[in-house]
Amino acid sequence: MTGSMGQDDAVQDDPVQHDAGQEELELVDRWWRAANYLSVGQIYLRSNPLLGEPLAAEHTKSRLLGHWGTTPGLNFVYAHLNRVIRRDSTEMLFVAGPGHGGPAVVANAWLEGTYSEIYAHVGNDAEGMAELFRQFSYPGGIPSHAAPESPGSISEGGELGYSLAHAYGSVFDNPQLVTAVVIGDGEAETGPLAASWHSHNFLDPAADGAVLPILHLNGYKIANPTVLARMPEQQLEQLLRGYGHEPYFVTVDDPDAFEKAHRDFAEALDRCMAEIRAIQDACRAPAENSETRNATDQAAPRWPMIVLRSPKGWTGPRSVDGKQVEGTWRSHQVPLSEVRTNGDHLRQLEEWLKSYRPGELFDGDGRLRPDVAEGAPTGNFRMSATPHANGGLLRRALKLPQYRDHAVEVPAPGTERVSPMITLGSWMRDVISLNMENFRLFGPDETASNRLQNVYEVTDKVWQYRIDDVDEHLARSGRVMEVLSEHLCQGWLEGYLLTGRHGVFSCYEAFIHIVDSMFNQHAKWLKVHRKLPWRQPVASLNYLLSSHVWQQDHNGFSHQDPGFIDHAVNKKAEVIRVYLPPDANTLLSVMEGCLASTDYVNIVVSGKQPSPTWLGPADAAHHCRRGLGIWGFAGSEVPGEEPDVVLACAGDVPTVETVAAAELLRDGVPGLKVRVVNVVDLMRLQDESEHPHGLPSRDFDGIFTTDKPIIFAYHGYPALIHRLTYRRTNQEGMHVRGYKEEGTTTTPFDMAMLNGIDRFQLAIDAIDRVPGLAEKHSLLRQDLQDRRMRARDHTREHGEDLEEIRDWKLGVDRL
Amino acid sequence: MTGSMGQDDAVQDDPVQHDAGQEELELVDRWWRAANYLSVGQIYLRSNPLLGEPLAAEHTKSRLLGHWGTTPGLNFVYAHLNRVIRRDSTEMLFVAGPGHGGPAVVANAWLEGTYSEIYAHVGNDAEGMAELFRQFSYPGGIPSHAAPESPGSISEGGELGYSLAHAYGSVFDNPQLVTAVVIGDGEAETGPLAASWHSHNFLDPAADGAVLPILHLNGYKIANPTVLARMPEQQLEQLLRGYGHEPYFVTVDDPDAFEKAHRDFAEALDRCMAEIRAIQDACRAPAENSETRNATDQAAPRWPMIVLRSPKGWTGPRSVDGKQVEGTWRSHQVPLSEVRTNGDHLRQLEEWLKSYRPGELFDGDGRLRPDVAEGAPTGNFRMSATPHANGGLLRRALKLPQYRDHAVEVPAPGTERVSPMITLGSWMRDVISLNMENFRLFGPDETASNRLQNVYEVTDKVWQYRIDDVDEHLARSGRVMEVLSEHLCQGWLEGYLLTGRHGVFSCYEAFIHIVDSMFNQHAKWLKVHRKLPWRQPVASLNYLLSSHVWQQDHNGFSHQDPGFIDHAVNKKAEVIRVYLPPDANTLLSVMEGCLASTDYVNIVVSGKQPSPTWLGPADAAHHCRRGLGIWGFAGSEVPGEEPDVVLACAGDVPTVETVAAAELLRDGVPGLKVRVVNVVDLMRLQDESEHPHGLPSRDFDGIFTTDKPIIFAYHGYPALIHRLTYRRTNQEGMHVRGYKEEGTTTTPFDMAMLNGIDRFQLAIDAIDRVPGLAEKHSLLRQDLQDRRMRARDHTREHGEDLEEIRDWKLGVDRL
Ligand SMILES: Cc1ncc(C[n+]2csc(CCOP(=O)(O)OP(=O)(O)O)c2C)c(N)n1
Ligand SMILES: Cc1ncc(C[n+]2csc(CCOP(=O)(O)OP(=O)(O)O)c2C)c(N)n1
Ligand SMILES: [Mg+2]
Ligand SMILES: [Mg+2]
Repeated sequence: MTGSMGQDDAVQDDPVQHDAGQEELELVDRWWRAANYLSVGQIYLRSNPLLGEPLAAEHTKSRLLGHWGTTPGLNFVYAHLNRVIRRDSTEMLFVAGPGHGGPAVVANAWLEGTYSEIYAHVGNDAEGMAELFRQFSYPGGIPSHAAPESPGSISEGGELGYSLAHAYGSVFDNPQLVTAVVIGDGEAETGPLAASWHSHNFLDPAADGAVLPILHLNGYKIANPTVLARMPEQQLEQLLRGYGHEPYFVTVDDPDAFEKAHRDFAEALDRCMAEIRAIQDACRAPAENSETRNATDQAAPRWPMIVLRSPKGWTGPRSVDGKQVEGTWRSHQVPLSEVRTNGDHLRQLEEWLKSYRPGELFDGDGRLRPDVAEGAPTGNFRMSATPHANGGLLRRALKLPQYRDHAVEVPAPGTERVSPMITLGSWMRDVISLNMENFRLFGPDETASNRLQNVYEVTDKVWQYRIDDVDEHLARSGRVMEVLSEHLCQGWLEGYLLTGRHGVFSCYEAFIHIVDSMFNQHAKWLKVHRKLPWRQPVASLNYLLSSHVWQQDHNGFSHQDPGFIDHAVNKKAEVIRVYLPPDANTLLSVMEGCLASTDYVNIVVSGKQPSPTWLGPADAAHHCRRGLGIWGFAGSEVPGEEPDVVLACAGDVPTVETVAAAELLRDGVPGLKVRVVNVVDLMRLQDESEHPHGLPSRDFDGIFTTDKPIIFAYHGYPALIHRLTYRRTNQEGMHVRGYKEEGTTTTPFDMAMLNGIDRFQLAIDAIDRVPGLAEKHSLLRQDLQDRRMRARDHTREHGEDLEEIRDWKLGVDRL
Repeated sequence: MTGSMGQDDAVQDDPVQHDAGQEELELVDRWWRAANYLSVGQIYLRSNPLLGEPLAAEHTKSRLLGHWGTTPGLNFVYAHLNRVIRRDSTEMLFVAGPGHGGPAVVANAWLEGTYSEIYAHVGNDAEGMAELFRQFSYPGGIPSHAAPESPGSISEGGELGYSLAHAYGSVFDNPQLVTAVVIGDGEAETGPLAASWHSHNFLDPAADGAVLPILHLNGYKIANPTVLARMPEQQLEQLLRGYGHEPYFVTVDDPDAFEKAHRDFAEALDRCMAEIRAIQDACRAPAENSETRNATDQAAPRWPMIVLRSPKGWTGPRSVDGKQVEGTWRSHQVPLSEVRTNGDHLRQLEEWLKSYRPGELFDGDGRLRPDVAEGAPTGNFRMSATPHANGGLLRRALKLPQYRDHAVEVPAPGTERVSPMITLGSWMRDVISLNMENFRLFGPDETASNRLQNVYEVTDKVWQYRIDDVDEHLARSGRVMEVLSEHLCQGWLEGYLLTGRHGVFSCYEAFIHIVDSMFNQHAKWLKVHRKLPWRQPVASLNYLLSSHVWQQDHNGFSHQDPGFIDHAVNKKAEVIRVYLPPDANTLLSVMEGCLASTDYVNIVVSGKQPSPTWLGPADAAHHCRRGLGIWGFAGSEVPGEEPDVVLACAGDVPTVETVAAAELLRDGVPGLKVRVVNVVDLMRLQDESEHPHGLPSRDFDGIFTTDKPIIFAYHGYPALIHRLTYRRTNQEGMHVRGYKEEGTTTTPFDMAMLNGIDRFQLAIDAIDRVPGLAEKHSLLRQDLQDRRMRARDHTREHGEDLEEIRDWKLGVDRL
């Protein structure tokens, strides 16, 4: 129990469930009819909400937008869940997989009173109802989906496939929560959804809540039948059992047999709730029993679920213009499309609306009649009002350990070689120890590969199937979530964050593109969420990308892609933060900031191989707070004089090459004034008008000069630096080196050379760009080229980099 | 039979399979040992390939890279498949899901002789073997994965999850082909793989080949057990049956019981091949029977598959430094990591290599002994040599209908309003009729939503489960592949293209990001493939993106994302083409070019709503060949004089707004010289040094001027235009409008206004930027602002756009 439910959260002691009586089911039916009425109203009406006068064309909207087909099913399930919530005082969250059924989510929130509480201009009377209808999918109104604007939603369901993962994310560490998730049968064909069925292997029945999947076989998607609805039912049953579930089938053969449908569904739901409780009770028994649960031979629980086979567009027009609509894909969007111009359509719409008998549901003022209103749970038990769906309300700030306790002492810049990720792993271990109930680390089987293994000193990876003696750090319960699915990592984490908790997704840099589109949806969610006063800030989504493009030794070209940053910066600047810490200490400092932040997406890219530490703990903190800085120790500036050239860098490997290039230039071109600038916070490069972190022009011009050549060694695709700096005075002087899609399985320095960001090339670039140098120093230039070729030849001959490069340290004499 | 197998492709008449005899299994075992030996050699050795002298540290590589764990399993399966191919003359293709088992793919190709045929420097003797070993994962050598460099591969398997989809893609329209695909049990946790199991519902047993999935339960991934390996076996069986398969389990309990393992696997394989043949025979019976197969009550076939439970790292070191390695995740990469410095490791490596008894396999010259060599199939039957894996060899150019027959006549620019996608649909229908065996259209349930429904006049959507009376255009066989999984669409298409056929993926623009990472992998594949002389050109991967950001009426913010283009242009310029046809005729012309092209990824973005047609058929063709052009009819230039301002546009909606803005300016500012430039081929904007389609500077400067303001209305994120033009002389004059992540469910013109690309804003931009205009025409400016507000207010009040905007046509008087 998270303590979020206020006073009246007494849970029934009696685990036996009572069958739903006739009266109760009638209440459910009234609620359902009311929700359906309000849904149809949203799609069609701009006035005359209670049909006080005969429906006329001008009462309807000029553009009919929205999706009817999925809506009655969502309403049906919602109404039934309410019965159970009321009876058992269950903390429940509702996730609508087919989020295009937005009218349902909104309708139920209005019926529960939440909508009017949050949006005062949509009152709970006739006028409010008119506004509820008008605003839907209307310019200046609300979107058609279960968007952030919708009370009770944590999942837009616009891009299909993430509902089940979101649901699991919501119940981790929420032992009292049951998340009911309606999964569209079309949605179920998507990869992310298909992978999500295995999520229960990562759910600890003792410490986590439960998910109740309701697979909604309405048979169709936009224009086709669905795979799961058309396979033989026996095969479907095998499939769901194969997923580890115990499926209960509710089949609506006769669309008019409402009573039977209600009875069947209520029974299935009661059974599921009882089984959930039973599983939880068994696993939550007092300590002596919990020993048993951890035994390796203990079978994983078989969680119940419901398969609801009901007609798409149920209760809507049976046929239109002579073609069957109810029970087919034709009901997907707007079944009657010509109500403004076709009298038959208009009449059909009126009949349809009246079929719900609105007079029984609303009084003359448009207020819900008491015998419908009593269908709603109270207060925060209303699914539209649950704080779990507005996670910021429940979020507790993380307790963050002092990162300085983990920082590397740096007697001289660049002398201490450590793995930034291993260092971070120790700090993360302490983050975990201090936050055992609201922080998790997610990763696709790469936590150790990314060198965060120190976290296993205090926690384990969650796993419910068999655990063998040979396994390490696997347990029924733990803070680390590892599954070979980037989609699941992302989906779980989103669900976890939006319900008020914290987390980090650690991933190979290249493969984070797998969740590009999920990131899009989350960034869009945050953009809207931030503007809604009633939505409280949630923890940022933190990506920790390692095993990056320059360190893919075991792999190769397919594992080299630093473009997630490019992808991310297309989203609203207020939401996106990108950090490229050059070493272990800056990584610690950056991560501390990320874990304390809210409502952002933070992208942090860091290497895992031992590499030089440049800044001591205090300097690192300053550097990160500044977001970028001039590294006096690396350059050869003369105080008070402008530099001849700026060597800029962002990213750990480019930083090493840049500092080494500066050293080559210092040795080779005495008197050359080289400024070295390191960028941690990439958004500093943008103009302040474009990004909240943007550096003011004056500062930028001071640091990068207005006319000197800038040789910028960048971690990723060079175009991004041009894109970020195209408004800067000295953008013409900007010469960027980065990853240019050249690579294979080879040595780290060969990778740098293949893409021209190696120290020799950078030094040559400086010689070529500082006026006059090329002529005077062509011998040096030639020497650098020769050394470059030698480095290359060495890799071909010995299969590894030259020792002087592998073990290079910034010359101690100059410090 | 595609006719690709040359002369000796007689298929056995006798469908009864004979059990594999002892002798045959010994041959399989020898092959397996040889492949394993060569695999270990690749990972460890740089010399002394035949162990002619005692193994010393200097014989080993300094950097040990690669993945052993998966490799023996791949070799095992490969050896067994060869037995069946030899016996039955089966056309077979091998897909290695765990493509990190590159050593296996390479080893088998070398054993089959293919490797040396393709790569002469890697001969089939001791010296060749030494080179085979040295080059692996070595600078200047070959990658660690089943990359394009690997003969016989169509699937890199670097980014996991696509093997099964690739396999299905390869067999569509290849009735004689059986693609055997090894699926990693870790890989099976990914979303795309999980979705792929349902692919057989989209495979017509009569006209398509067969896929034989071999689920490789080696129990582990990088650092964890796998879900499928640890669930109770009975549950796994249910799962696979639920997927519609008939699974045959082969379990290797005792890693030393090779004989039993061979016998069990051979038996399972024989059974599977017989069942595949039986299913195909039943479906391919003469015409009278095929009637039966189309009947709706006919159950879909239950295809066989194999579950191979074998130890990860099988035959490798059982334990190292006291820890179990064989049969655990510890064998994933390099089991003995210190052979250079640790004598025990070195000795263990030597024993390991010797355990394969190389003397029995290779003669003193390193040549394969005849009694191993006979394990290889002949010629093109060798899986490493099959032309299906080098699809360019089999590719036949499409027969393309004259697009002019489908083009819209344009009496005056902008007067004919048609839906470009509907127009294209008619042309695509004819493309399909003309290419019934090597062209398919793929889409996630959106073909009709994207308005390509005219294709259904000549073909259907493939579906093997029940077909009901109410269904439209569903059939056992067809050219349209619809499944609600962008991953499957992409994966199938990739497999289809790489085996020599053609296709188009039609998708909502926003959701194409779902396959960002798959696109990455394909673009990377093409980049490498293009440089390999032995790989023949394959058809381009064509994305047709519709229901784009400006036309998301039923949906909203989550469906608005034009960023796939940005993502794509990070890949090698030689591979990427991007087209934004402004109308129906240019769309036709562009698509004609795309379907005729090879080795590209073409991205075409087009609206589906009726919109003005600007250019007649001939002009459209010229415009597309130029890639961009000045539209005299839309501007108000004076021949021989420089314009005062350039209004540029790319994308259909921005084009309408730009032409309308030019009209506003002509009416409001008489004498103002406005040039209108439309860009179809986005890559024309780049410098010619950066992209093969880049416009030479002189041309660019001529068209865009060197110093006049350019108001660029762009379809997508504005930053991309800056990025593409940052090297251009007049980049400072470039003012770009585009999508800035503002949107919701609203009217089309409201969307344009929310993002500032509407005609009024563009005209205001021109007034603000042409020197002197702001002062002189501030009344006009105010009037435009007022009209803009009126347009906005109208949407709020009426829920639709002003009629004068909805039905706007370029003023007829001026033409
Ligand atoms: C990933 C993705 N691809 C495509 C779409 C377009 N789309 C919107 S609704 C829909 C059909 C959904 O079918 P189903 O999940 O069965 O929902 P329901 O039948 O309840 O409407 C599709 C394909 C989408 N929203 N998301
Ligand atoms: C999508 C993706 N995520 C992560 C990885 C990193 N990775 C490489 S191999 C591997 C484990 C693969 O396990 P499995 O499929 O069982 O193959 P096998 O055991 O045969 O090696 C992982 C997670 C990857 N290659 N692709
Ligand atoms: Mg459905
Ligand atoms: Mg495995």
